[in-house]
Parts: sequence; structure tokens; C-alpha cells
Amino acid sequence: MRRYGAAVVKDRNETPADAVEGRPGIEVLNRAVDILDVFTVGPGTSLSLAEISRRSGLPKATAHRLLAALEVLGLIERTGVGYQLGLRLFELGERVPRKHALREAALPFMQDLYEATHDTVHLAVLEGTDVVYLERIRGHRSSNVASRVGGRLPAACTGVGKALLAFDDEAAARVLAAPIAPRTRYTITDPKVLADELVRIRAAGVAFDREENTIGITCAAAPILMNNRPLGAVSVTGSPPLLDVDRIASAVKTAAIGIQRTLAAGGGTRGTR
Amino acid sequence: MRRYGAAVVKDRNETPADAVEGRPGIEVLNRAVDILDVFTVGPGTSLSLAEISRRSGLPKATAHRLLAALEVLGLIERTGVGYQLGLRLFELGERVPRKHALREAALPFMQDLYEATHDTVHLAVLEGTDVVYLERIRGHRSSNVASRVGGRLPAACTGVGKALLAFDDEAAARVLAAPIAPRTRYTITDPKVLADELVRIRAAGVAFDREENTIGITCAAAPILMNNRPLGAVSVTGSPPLLDVDRIASAVKTAAIGIQRTLAAGGGTRGTR
Repeated sequence: MRRYGAAVVKDRNETPADAVEGRPGIEVLNRAVDILDVFTVGPGTSLSLAEISRRSGLPKATAHRLLAALEVLGLIERTGVGYQLGLRLFELGERVPRKHALREAALPFMQDLYEATHDTVHLAVLEGTDVVYLERIRGHRSSNVASRVGGRLPAACTGVGKALLAFDDEAAARVLAAPIAPRTRYTITDPKVLADELVRIRAAGVAFDREENTIGITCAAAPILMNNRPLGAVSVTGSPPLLDVDRIASAVKTAAIGIQRTLAAGGGTRGTR
Repeated sequence: MRRYGAAVVKDRNETPADAVEGRPGIEVLNRAVDILDVFTVGPGTSLSLAEISRRSGLPKATAHRLLAALEVLGLIERTGVGYQLGLRLFELGERVPRKHALREAALPFMQDLYEATHDTVHLAVLEGTDVVYLERIRGHRSSNVASRVGGRLPAACTGVGKALLAFDDEAAARVLAAPIAPRTRYTITDPKVLADELVRIRAAGVAFDREENTIGITCAAAPILMNNRPLGAVSVTGSPPLLDVDRIASAVKTAAIGIQRTLAAGGGTRGTR
């Protein structure tokens, strides 16, 4: 039997999975997250017990018991027709420091970019080979932009993703080693072409997405760097000719530098890992 | 022993707590949420095992085991000095429909208010006797505004809170029945005075916070109504004389009406309970 507490902190070879395996009760936690995971964004955010059971693969009795526990915790709410994710889950999620600190530093500069363009302005971080969108501000102009706050897209075919990969060799190596699924006919799927592109982005300090994720949508993105490591990236996304990414590029770079300066002055470094 | 599954759905008198009580394994879930709950926003977002054990009241061994399980799930991340909330928790929280749908409908109108004022613009919902802030946009102007996205404030002493209470008799009754803790010398603590104020707000369609939560900070707020029920409230918050809440009031009301129109047209009703 493995020992816990202080002893384990010294054991650097132990993975979290080792510490968890075979522990009674932990399975409940995994199943509870499986249940939270079946809820998606968009139509059908309220699900019946039968649908939750089907999507999670859990027996109805188990799903019901877990839903009741999650409801007591405020993580699930009952609706007229079933269950939906509870507001408390949002409240907990907003405390995540990688989101909170970077967003607070970035928001005023994102507002400047919005006022200059009235296009969609993004803030994103790298997570594996994906980007996760921390913030997305936009006005009335309807657009076909594929992102959503808290959503993911493959890093290789987004402006923010390429801006981050250009300054993160480890993540870039992972992306270049795996096949890249084309999302449009402009997606860069050849690893050699993408590697060259990342070198250019690193030199220029700005990345462009020219319809590589969605036809009709272009983007200019710049990395937010701290000690030469990319903490996140900011971008302006829209449709030509209203948005000319080459003309907006310097404003996006300037915004990223402003965010860096705010972070360096302590305005948001709290908790940023 | 209580039966679960379909039988329970018919038993309308059963509370979620009844269904959960004494269930083996569910306790793990409660403890896991206790651990997530010890993490706060601000300095010290990364906590040591000892600190997590102290704050949660759980033995170190138990806390360590749960942290390992939560790390596998991505809800907790290791840092150089301990643990912090994981990005996956933010991703899950962003799927909460009461947040997502209302925010998407409101954001363009919030941007309009920001451009007109360059003050802080809020979107909030009522949760018990508190307001929970769904969105908060702001520019470079530094201010002493007490809110944060995902944070709570007592409804009685905020503009958004009073705008919501004026159209929600049940919540207003709860607030008026309990003592109201003064936050400044302008907080309305007399239930009779607050009840009169709510009547005036209901008639005018706009609520003002005149330094009732923070000295030097004022606010104009309007409810977002659907079938005469308040789904949320939008507000502009700032400091006089830069912000004149009486002059901005009609713009805030207009923004709320625009959000209602968007929601009524289906732009965000998805999942709003």
C-alpha cells in the first residue's frame, strides 16, 4: 500500500494516475465529471435523465444518484424538462487563475482593438495541441467566427494558435508530429510548410489566419510573452474587406505588448503559471 | 432503502439531499468540491497541500488523494509550489447555459454602453439574495468597482440587484425579511425604505446605486425581462462626475430592451431557464 501525505511529495516519479488507481470512492468523482461532460453548448442544454444516461454510458439509477448529489452541490440545476449545468460551476470556473489573471490584464487592450475595428477580438491560451478561448468580445456585426469562450480549436489552423506555437517549441513539435486535419482548403497540413510559417511568425511577432479554419474568416494574432514564454495570444478576427489583417497587424502587436507590460507590472501575474 | 431511477422522478416530495444522504461514495464528491472551494481569486491562487488540508478541514492524506484524482480530471493543476484550479474547470463553467445564452445576447449592447461611457459595464443574475456577475467589461480607466466575473455581491446594495428584486417578488420578500448588512453609510438597511425603492424602480424601469456598495461608485441598472420575469440585469458603473447615472439611465434601459429583443428572437434563449 502506497503512503500518502508528505511522503508522496518527495516521490517525483509518481504520476497522479498512480495515486488514484484502485482507490474506492474516486470512481464516483470520475463518473460525476463524466456526467458534467455530457452537457454541451447550444440547443439542448437541458437534458433528460434518459439522455444523460445514454450519453454518459451510466445506468439510469447511477446517473440519477449522481445528478441528485451534483444538484445539492449546485453544479447541476433542475429544469422543467430535466437537468442543466448549474451556475455554481460557472462561479468555480471563473476562479481558475490562468483565465482570471490574463483576462483582467488583457481586457482594456482588447476593448481598444474592438473600438478600432468593431470586429471580434479573442484572447486564447495553448492547451496541448488546441487553443482554449479565454475571452471573445464582439459587437452587433454578425459573423461566422467559429470560436466561443471556453471552447477549443486546433492550434495549427488558428491565428492565436500559430502565434503561440511559434514561441513554444515543445507544443510545436507535438503539433508537427501528428497529422493535421484540414478544416478548409487553406489549412496548412504539410508539417514542413507549417514549420516554415512558424519561423516567419517568430521573426515577425504576428501570425495570420487566412481562411485556414473557416472560409471567409481571417485573423491577425500576436503572442503575449513573459520571459520569452508565450502566456497567451490576442487577435482580431473578421471578414475581408471590412477587416484587412495586414493593416491591423501592428495594432494587434501593440495590444500584446501593452498586455505584457501590465502583466510585468503585476497587473494579473497573480496565479498565472 | 429508497428506490432510485424512475420511481424517484414521481416522488415530488423527495429533495435532492434525501436522495443523496448516506450513499457511499457520494461523500467523495462533496469533499472534492470542498477542495475546489478553498481556492480563491487574487494573491495566493496556488496553494500547498498543507494549506489545502487546513482550509478544507480534510486530513492531508485525504486531500492528497482527492487532489491527485482532480488533477487526472484536469480540474486541478500542479504548480511549482502546490496546486491551482485547472483550466478544464473554466471550460466546463463556460457551458453553463444561464451564463452562456444571456451573455451572448447581451454582449453587443454592453459594448455599445462601454463605447458611450468608457465605464464598467455589468451583466448579472439573481441567485438567492445575491447577484452573480456573468460579465464585466471595462477599459483602462482604473476604478474601485467591487465586482468580478463569477463573483457575488448582496443584491440589496447593488444597482443590478435592486433592478432584479423590483421584478421578482419572491426574492424581494427574502431580502426584505432578513437583516441587511450596511456596506457604506448609504446602504439602504431599512426594509420599508428598500420596499418603497423597489416600487419606484419597478415603475421607472431603472435602478440606481448611489454609493450604496462602495463609496465613490455609482451605477444605473435595468432589468432584462422575458414574460415579465427578470432574466438578468445590465448596468453602467463608475465614479461621478465622469459618470452621471441620471443621464446614462435611458441608454441602459435601451440596452436592456435590445437584449430582450435579441433573446425573444431566439438569440440566446437556448437553455436559459
